[in-house]
Amino acid sequence: MNEFKFEVIYSSKKSKARVGKIYTPHGIINTPSFVAVGTNGTIKALDNKMIESIGLDLMFCNTYHLILQPGSKLIKKAGGIHKFINRDMPIITDSGGFQVFSLAFGSVASELKSKGAKKTNCTLLKITEEGATFRSYRDGTKILLTPESSIQAQKDIASDIIIPLDELPPYHMDLKALKKSLDRTHRWEKRSLDCHLKNRQNQAMYAVIHGGINKDLREESSKYLSSLDFDGFAIGGSVGKNKKEMIEMLTFTMKHLPIDKPNHLLGIGDISSLEECIPLGIDTFDSSYPTKAARHGFVLTNKKGIKLTKKENEQNFNPIDKNCSCYTCKNFTLSYLHHLFKAKELTALSLASIHNLHFMARYMKDIREKILIGEI
Amino acid sequence: MNEFKFEVIYSSKKSKARVGKIYTPHGIINTPSFVAVGTNGTIKALDNKMIESIGLDLMFCNTYHLILQPGSKLIKKAGGIHKFINRDMPIITDSGGFQVFSLAFGSVASELKSKGAKKTNCTLLKITEEGATFRSYRDGTKILLTPESSIQAQKDIASDIIIPLDELPPYHMDLKALKKSLDRTHRWEKRSLDCHLKNRQNQAMYAVIHGGINKDLREESSKYLSSLDFDGFAIGGSVGKNKKEMIEMLTFTMKHLPIDKPNHLLGIGDISSLEECIPLGIDTFDSSYPTKAARHGFVLTNKKGIKLTKKENEQNFNPIDKNCSCYTCKNFTLSYLHHLFKAKELTALSLASIHNLHFMARYMKDIREKILIGEI
Repeated sequence: MNEFKFEVIYSSKKSKARVGKIYTPHGIINTPSFVAVGTNGTIKALDNKMIESIGLDLMFCNTYHLILQPGSKLIKKAGGIHKFINRDMPIITDSGGFQVFSLAFGSVASELKSKGAKKTNCTLLKITEEGATFRSYRDGTKILLTPESSIQAQKDIASDIIIPLDELPPYHMDLKALKKSLDRTHRWEKRSLDCHLKNRQNQAMYAVIHGGINKDLREESSKYLSSLDFDGFAIGGSVGKNKKEMIEMLTFTMKHLPIDKPNHLLGIGDISSLEECIPLGIDTFDSSYPTKAARHGFVLTNKKGIKLTKKENEQNFNPIDKNCSCYTCKNFTLSYLHHLFKAKELTALSLASIHNLHFMARYMKDIREKILIGEI
Repeated sequence: MNEFKFEVIYSSKKSKARVGKIYTPHGIINTPSFVAVGTNGTIKALDNKMIESIGLDLMFCNTYHLILQPGSKLIKKAGGIHKFINRDMPIITDSGGFQVFSLAFGSVASELKSKGAKKTNCTLLKITEEGATFRSYRDGTKILLTPESSIQAQKDIASDIIIPLDELPPYHMDLKALKKSLDRTHRWEKRSLDCHLKNRQNQAMYAVIHGGINKDLREESSKYLSSLDFDGFAIGGSVGKNKKEMIEMLTFTMKHLPIDKPNHLLGIGDISSLEECIPLGIDTFDSSYPTKAARHGFVLTNKKGIKLTKKENEQNFNPIDKNCSCYTCKNFTLSYLHHLFKAKELTALSLASIHNLHFMARYMKDIREKILIGEI
């Protein structure tokens, strides 16, 4: 069994991009890497053996969902998440905090539209120094999520990389409140780390850098968390209301993170963001975008992508991409996929998801090669 | 390319059961055989390459659905159904008549409940000697389905086995009306056959035996249709309001069908019906039951089957069946499947469907062996 280790194979001369390997007990993550999101222990509409064959090294599962169903104790009883879901490759879990807070505050986009926090369906009941109390969306029971309970859940789940509990402040928060939230996040992350270090259980822990779009706070967060015994760094919180703001914040933050540890950007993985973030030195990216787009009939290509339900695909008897070696492109045509979506067949969702995840795997492989030959 | 041919390998000394091989241009159907239903050119929640690996020899597609989406002309343009859906094994299509009439009259079960024909949502507009006019459930256009147009559609689709247009009389029909319907069905089937024989296109055509639960009419239908140049016989129409009535009718009808041609029972394929119908000499059975049950979380086993969402499966870390070699049983546990259904993951529907179809393939293989060793 491999211990967690990060190795930079090559650092670009042209940018801060690097090619690396993250060693985990369940194998190697080649970076930069796209991380597929399998919230409930499966990528939607696909099974884990198919996912392994697609070749995405790391899978992201959500502790929030797993503690509500089937429960972390059950996963422990099953022998850990890898055995439970039958995946022999690396898995990362988050703390559960993101969902607790995002279900309360909504996304930056929805926040920008309503210019405030969600008032309805608020499942977040109380935030105290101890932790966050929320109501289960499944059965209405009250649950207190603390740094210690989140880490215990992730120990039970036994993922390869775990994440400390943080507070997710809404985008529109004044500086004073943001600073207060950051301080609490730091205390929570420290408590999470302490809990983890008592029993490493061969897991790695990534800190989550916060500070919203305030440079001073991002610097403070980077410096403080870098001083602790974390194995890597995830960038979380509000990363900005648009791409420009995000890139500016990330460019700044990355300067303050140690180059010998891996970095992860939470929840962002669309192609144009990847293109801009990889040269900043970010190593891994998780996003449900490729699978969500697939289920809406949108498949990724080197050009601008294809909306399968469009009339123009009806009589196209070529695959999505002639040069793609994915299961879907090897076996089925655009015309057939168009038909399956029109006929509302579930098969359509699976076949489009396979293609999009394979596309992401190949895209990242190309990115690694481009870095190695000095193009990025 | 194989011509259509039926070979009886072995006839039971104990019953009328037989083991046979139906040769088609796309391979052999080992009989008795369960036929999977892939209405729109796919088995729901699965893809055709997976279906081929499961080993069910014959797949049933519905002309009614295919003419409405994507249209038979498009399938012709794609090079036929096998190429369009990428299946290299035999395919049977029906005439489209069943859906036109069943959507109007409802099933026997719903008919028994309401004691009459459906009055609402009737998409069947008119039945004349020429054919049946119905309204497309997709876009409301009026469509006239005639023996000739159904056969032309099936020629365009280019399935291996095709079915002539018939009228599906409701279960509660007086003898005079039933006889009138049977006569028209016979005229329609003859027109269908004539149309087919002008251009065989390497397809086989099965007649559909009608006559409801009236023995005289079933005998008349069997004799008349046997006298024509059909390659096999499907048993259609109302087969009875319960299993006893069905078995009585089938036992009687089978006596009047030629033993050197294959027989198919339309729309019936649950285990207990198979057990009773195979000894009557029926060779193939189509049913959407195994896949529909799977999508409702019910998986087939040698005992009474398992409802996956039941609490008792939550901590069962064995596969559905330890002796099952299907993809699902080789890779996933009952506990995980229980979880996937509880979490409403689409993956659950696919994994349960794989198991149920594999179960049917293995069940029929066992049946064939039991016939060969004299047990059935």
